[in-house]
Amino acid sequence: MVSAVRVAPSAASRARNLLRTVQYTHPPSCPCHSNPNHHHHHRSPTLSDHVRRHMATPVDPSRQKEYAFEMAASSIRFGPGATKEVGMDFANMKAKRVCIVTDENVAKLDAMKQAVEGLSREGIEFTVFDKVRIEPKDSSVKEAIAFAKPYNPDAFLAVGGGSVIDTAKLMNLYTVFPDADFLDFVNAPLGKGLPVNRPLKPLVAVPTTAGTGSETTGTAIFDLVSKKAKTGIAHRNLKPTLGICDPINTRTMPSAVHASSGLDVLCHSLESWTAIPYNERTPRPTNPINRPAYQGANPISDIFSLQALKSTVKYLPRAVKDPDDFEAQSQMLLAATLAGVGFGNAGVHLCHGMSYPISSQNPGYKHAGYSVDHPIIPHGVSVAVTAPAVFRFTAASNPDRHLAAAEAFGVDISNVKRESAGEVLGEALANFLVRLGDQPRGLKDLGFKAGDIDSLVEGTIPQQRVLALAPTLNKELEAERAELRGLLEESLEY
Amino acid sequence: MVSAVRVAPSAASRARNLLRTVQYTHPPSCPCHSNPNHHHHHRSPTLSDHVRRHMATPVDPSRQKEYAFEMAASSIRFGPGATKEVGMDFANMKAKRVCIVTDENVAKLDAMKQAVEGLSREGIEFTVFDKVRIEPKDSSVKEAIAFAKPYNPDAFLAVGGGSVIDTAKLMNLYTVFPDADFLDFVNAPLGKGLPVNRPLKPLVAVPTTAGTGSETTGTAIFDLVSKKAKTGIAHRNLKPTLGICDPINTRTMPSAVHASSGLDVLCHSLESWTAIPYNERTPRPTNPINRPAYQGANPISDIFSLQALKSTVKYLPRAVKDPDDFEAQSQMLLAATLAGVGFGNAGVHLCHGMSYPISSQNPGYKHAGYSVDHPIIPHGVSVAVTAPAVFRFTAASNPDRHLAAAEAFGVDISNVKRESAGEVLGEALANFLVRLGDQPRGLKDLGFKAGDIDSLVEGTIPQQRVLALAPTLNKELEAERAELRGLLEESLEY
Repeated sequence: MVSAVRVAPSAASRARNLLRTVQYTHPPSCPCHSNPNHHHHHRSPTLSDHVRRHMATPVDPSRQKEYAFEMAASSIRFGPGATKEVGMDFANMKAKRVCIVTDENVAKLDAMKQAVEGLSREGIEFTVFDKVRIEPKDSSVKEAIAFAKPYNPDAFLAVGGGSVIDTAKLMNLYTVFPDADFLDFVNAPLGKGLPVNRPLKPLVAVPTTAGTGSETTGTAIFDLVSKKAKTGIAHRNLKPTLGICDPINTRTMPSAVHASSGLDVLCHSLESWTAIPYNERTPRPTNPINRPAYQGANPISDIFSLQALKSTVKYLPRAVKDPDDFEAQSQMLLAATLAGVGFGNAGVHLCHGMSYPISSQNPGYKHAGYSVDHPIIPHGVSVAVTAPAVFRFTAASNPDRHLAAAEAFGVDISNVKRESAGEVLGEALANFLVRLGDQPRGLKDLGFKAGDIDSLVEGTIPQQRVLALAPTLNKELEAERAELRGLLEESLEY
Repeated sequence: MVSAVRVAPSAASRARNLLRTVQYTHPPSCPCHSNPNHHHHHRSPTLSDHVRRHMATPVDPSRQKEYAFEMAASSIRFGPGATKEVGMDFANMKAKRVCIVTDENVAKLDAMKQAVEGLSREGIEFTVFDKVRIEPKDSSVKEAIAFAKPYNPDAFLAVGGGSVIDTAKLMNLYTVFPDADFLDFVNAPLGKGLPVNRPLKPLVAVPTTAGTGSETTGTAIFDLVSKKAKTGIAHRNLKPTLGICDPINTRTMPSAVHASSGLDVLCHSLESWTAIPYNERTPRPTNPINRPAYQGANPISDIFSLQALKSTVKYLPRAVKDPDDFEAQSQMLLAATLAGVGFGNAGVHLCHGMSYPISSQNPGYKHAGYSVDHPIIPHGVSVAVTAPAVFRFTAASNPDRHLAAAEAFGVDISNVKRESAGEVLGEALANFLVRLGDQPRGLKDLGFKAGDIDSLVEGTIPQQRVLALAPTLNKELEAERAELRGLLEESLEY
């Protein structure tokens, strides 16, 4: 099925991949409860193995590997027309003052009309904050928080894309913790990374794009301008109470937005599927509240990630090509949510880590189909542009898993050798992007030059929270820099 | 793979199946957002189709089909040794008085020791109710509630099997609604079936069996002695806050308990996978709080149900045969939880509906390997004994889905005709049960005679909540009786 466009890896990259396959195919530290798709093993460990491995007096938890994973996701309601139920939801939870969060574009759409009518019908008082900035920064988030605090709502309703839902999460957080310093909860090392140790107020999220999956996750992303870094806050307690996924609401997306949102879904699913296994992550938390939401791949996130990948490969091209293909659009909204549950509990890694400097150091590229008056590399585009190089690189960590991903793209893997898994998946990805249409064929098409690579590397280094989940990345800083440089160089064109 | 034991259906049942395949293979009412595995269709509906179908002024919601589904599940933490974290969980949620719920057997096990030590280490006050009755009845539940009310805990901890977790849910419910009549929340028509319209107190569930999946669901089952019926309470707000699935805790199960618990998982996954699609269910709720947890199969429950089925087929025989096979036991605990998310949001149907009278009208059968001093048909055994007949019967509703289930049992379905789906799945199931060992080969082995069938039918009729999800059952009462009679007769021996 995948053959029209050949993207041949260099002999050097082939040799590197082979070497890494040898290096990284080692037995896991705890086979007995690891994901069966991650590893193969031949003997059933006994309890005494377990006692020896897990239950001995902990020596230094910071060097011990994790032994548990935790799955948490918002409740999800899915159905065309479900938006109109939202007023009853707030009435059912006895909400009296609701803060609706949206942006100026979404404020004009039918989704907002439905939401406002729903609350009015139930006689619930509400106010509307429609100043959410697309790609929020700390200043825009603080402005939103300053709006919410004096209103003191007892519940929040977010209607919009990921920027809106993320901003609403942060308004909720800092209304419940009014005296907290803004950096208290921001991911370390940029912020203090404190856990959110109180339940927040109810937040209902109504996504109007099929991409971020933010309606299911405890993650909120923004630009921390002072530190010149994209970062965020991530904790289970930040997740919405309910996500209302109404496929009628995504029909307003232009075709180009369908495409780039869908590429975000593609990378959410591929990155979480290939992230390090949860039981290879260190440190083991000494208190469960410190177990990160981005905890590595686990047997439950895997189910969501692989299903989302399969759906995206099947439905994204249809959703992009035919604005009347409501089935494909509905399936993409579902896939975005499934991928949200997957990466929301497993994490993302290299594509997302590198995407932030790619978007923010944009040399002047303006993506076709985006009606804005300034240069823009949409998030999904900046994520996908490195994907062929990334998965060629990570395949050595787990060839079987990368082969399964290639199979999801329709590749017949029955005769593919394990050491070719990266090549094959990289090619399948490149073909998929080319066929989707209107996508840059590498960083060069975005206007980046070889001389920009170092700056992109330095912009990626602060993303340790996601880089820590990359399955093969060297943990030593200079070696990590060299590997990132290699990936970005390979991504100049494909 | 499946061939050693042949279980040939009668010519009559073959003819019936063929007839039903013709009857039930009709186009769905709303193809655009139905599960792609449920139906095939050839045209992408447009928004105007949707408007026509969904958004016209509702005429009579009781006759309208559902248009949305809602997925809700407890957060799940999975890992060997995770039980010891539970004290920190209660400290993190600022709990001050915890009611621990267990039974007299589990009270002696290491799981309880870990839980008690965890709470003590954090200095949290607690009390222990260890009088949970296995297979709870209204009187035992009321006794448990009477224990909890004066203690007035601010959180609950359930350590045990399904009976314990279900009883804890009800203690939580009636402590939060102290003035409610016991029947207020009980499933209609036996009770009033009121929705649980307030959040309950935090409940952490630590399962010690791999079966019910109760740690993820909003369902609590008990015997309503006055009405001679097994019934329960089911609402999303009843679900635990967190399920801690620690595979070390299920090692105490004897082999026979592994087997029968695992058969419960098998039927949870098969019944939810084959339940009517959510968008075929009536009535459409006029308020989302009335959308039942048992809402029919949907694209998210499907993922859980099918994965749980595959895991059960793979790991249950190993878990039963080798008490030292910790990997298989861990995987069965995970499968039980996955199946819990699946059926907790889709429902079960005929096997569960008929299992209640089978267990309660036990003519005197005592299952091997259960060290009790009275006759017992374990829940999983009573559920599985009708499964071959049930899925032969339901296959006509959706042959593809039944073929996929047969494939999960290892059957090569590439040359199986769709009208043979029921036969093939029924045979695969019967073979699986026979090979598992120590299972009755039909109701006769349990001591039932042909003359008992009518009484079993009458005991099944009140289970309308689950019967309503059976994909092919006749809704007219006399016809329904006849179909149940046919299923029970076919289940006399296989």
